[in-house]
Amino acid sequence: MGAVGSLRASGPDPIPAGQAHGEDALTALLSLVQDDLARCNRTIVARMQSPVELIPQLAAHIVAAGGKRLRPLLTLSCAKLCGYAGGDRHVSLAACVEFIHTATLLHDDVVDDSALRRGLASANAVFGNKASVLVGDFLFARAFELMVEDGSLRVLAILSRAAATIAEGEVLQLVTQNDLSTTEDRYLAVIEGKTAALFAAACQVAGVVADRPEAEEQALARYGHNLGVAFQLVDDALDYAADQAVLGKTVGDDFREGKITLPVLAAYAAGDAAEREFWRRTIEESEQTADDLEHAMRLVEQRGAIGTTIDRAARYAADACAALDVFPDTPIRRALLDAASYTLSRAR
Amino acid sequence: MGAVGSLRASGPDPIPAGQAHGEDALTALLSLVQDDLARCNRTIVARMQSPVELIPQLAAHIVAAGGKRLRPLLTLSCAKLCGYAGGDRHVSLAACVEFIHTATLLHDDVVDDSALRRGLASANAVFGNKASVLVGDFLFARAFELMVEDGSLRVLAILSRAAATIAEGEVLQLVTQNDLSTTEDRYLAVIEGKTAALFAAACQVAGVVADRPEAEEQALARYGHNLGVAFQLVDDALDYAADQAVLGKTVGDDFREGKITLPVLAAYAAGDAAEREFWRRTIEESEQTADDLEHAMRLVEQRGAIGTTIDRAARYAADACAALDVFPDTPIRRALLDAASYTLSRAR
Repeated sequence: MGAVGSLRASGPDPIPAGQAHGEDALTALLSLVQDDLARCNRTIVARMQSPVELIPQLAAHIVAAGGKRLRPLLTLSCAKLCGYAGGDRHVSLAACVEFIHTATLLHDDVVDDSALRRGLASANAVFGNKASVLVGDFLFARAFELMVEDGSLRVLAILSRAAATIAEGEVLQLVTQNDLSTTEDRYLAVIEGKTAALFAAACQVAGVVADRPEAEEQALARYGHNLGVAFQLVDDALDYAADQAVLGKTVGDDFREGKITLPVLAAYAAGDAAEREFWRRTIEESEQTADDLEHAMRLVEQRGAIGTTIDRAARYAADACAALDVFPDTPIRRALLDAASYTLSRAR
Repeated sequence: MGAVGSLRASGPDPIPAGQAHGEDALTALLSLVQDDLARCNRTIVARMQSPVELIPQLAAHIVAAGGKRLRPLLTLSCAKLCGYAGGDRHVSLAACVEFIHTATLLHDDVVDDSALRRGLASANAVFGNKASVLVGDFLFARAFELMVEDGSLRVLAILSRAAATIAEGEVLQLVTQNDLSTTEDRYLAVIEGKTAALFAAACQVAGVVADRPEAEEQALARYGHNLGVAFQLVDDALDYAADQAVLGKTVGDDFREGKITLPVLAAYAAGDAAEREFWRRTIEESEQTADDLEHAMRLVEQRGAIGTTIDRAARYAADACAALDVFPDTPIRRALLDAASYTLSRAR
């Protein structure tokens, strides 16, 4: 598997308790909360209904299309980690977290005219920008209705804060787009907002419904936050990974949109004059020709920028695992540690 | 003032206690809650801040650009009507209502490629679709943070329900666009969702913070709902009102977008074969030439469709006023009755 070698983090594996790698890493988690996840899926389908037919139609296109349900999975398994046995609150909140995630996906797909002209296709291409925005709004509102039904102001505080932070992260991403002078700190602020905030909230609310002490709630938030950063770093690396293209997955979306991610920042920082000129033209000026993506992927590879990004992700994943030290060693804790391996294994 | 004659509702004025007409109709309300409104404006500016600079910049473009603050005005004056004197909760919730309204405005401005190609300009033309969507999301999330700080689950239930209903109304509007077979009931469902739901919630939450009995809370909701429908009907009439063009206001937005509103439905229903063909071409096929708007306005006028719409609005305004019967006759109640006149006076 030489093709994936470029994606392997250098140095020793920092994940302490990872038993399983690759797709297996999520299997343990999935099997431990299987029933809860099935109920969560039923809640999702039941609560995305509306007399306005386009809403469930469009929502189904993205919600029911599957996805890994990673965020609800976190809520459900953190609830199990906390020994929650008080009813179905974790199931409703897991659905709520997925609705918020889906709303942001729909809104993230909105494109400006310029992007459309560059020929970008996205989920909303089927239904149009406006429908995506409005159905996203519906799912977002529905998420809050689910929280209100749950009745915990603490849960509402955590998730409304997360929602605002997500929006801030997304706006910051828009602001940094096409700007190679973006600092790594600013890039981290983007992914902490757009991805890690909801991962953290998804885990933390489980501690709330299980009525665990503040320290455990914070540990769950820390686990989710670091896991989310690791997940996004790997995602950003995969967008420049040649072997992903081989596997039939999409690469180059970030490149085409001029998104500023760590692989680009690292390759740009390490590049010579000609390389920097290449990045300026393609990312800052958005002037791209057919061969540019392949060249970009080669530069990212040659400058070790994928390795840099994955190393960073591995450190966050290790921090995620460390946050779970306050919990006793149980199958669900081990499965959550494996989930941290999973975020990295996608790049192996 | 012959030019505005076409907008006058036929029949006797159904508003019982309207003392003032035209712009004056809001003056009493504004002067009675002046201090609260000033505090609400300060809350709005304070709470739309974010370290991500584009957020307050873009929000200021639309929030601070003024507008009549009609919805927060309703929350503040309904709180006064209920004798609320328990603190600043009504001010925070008024700001929250305005944030939700602003978020929907920003999202309503999102256009699809086809609309852009037809040369529509909107607020988001300055910043782009995506920024409008994301800043709208931020304001929406911030609105929920304000509600969580308020701490009333009942308020949260009312406003999260309203938010979902608004989204449903907006999606339904999108679905009915360009479709002349839309029934009046369906059109009413659109405006009840996109406009009346937030008017109703803005009024109802005032009853909650003032801890008034359920009957009064429901009366406030009914006042707001009917006022909202009246307001939107008049708005839809004004879009085809020739004298508005004379006054320098925008007309024809709905026509250009192929939006289905009562003036169009009424003119289409009453039209002869040639007129129906005109409406089909312009509204259903979106094939419009430079002279078409003027012709549409003439048809709407000749077929009495403006009168039909305003008559309908007057009935809703009367129902709004009737809902306030449960409250004692005070200056604030009279000012709220005048506000119902105001919704109509915009068309006189």
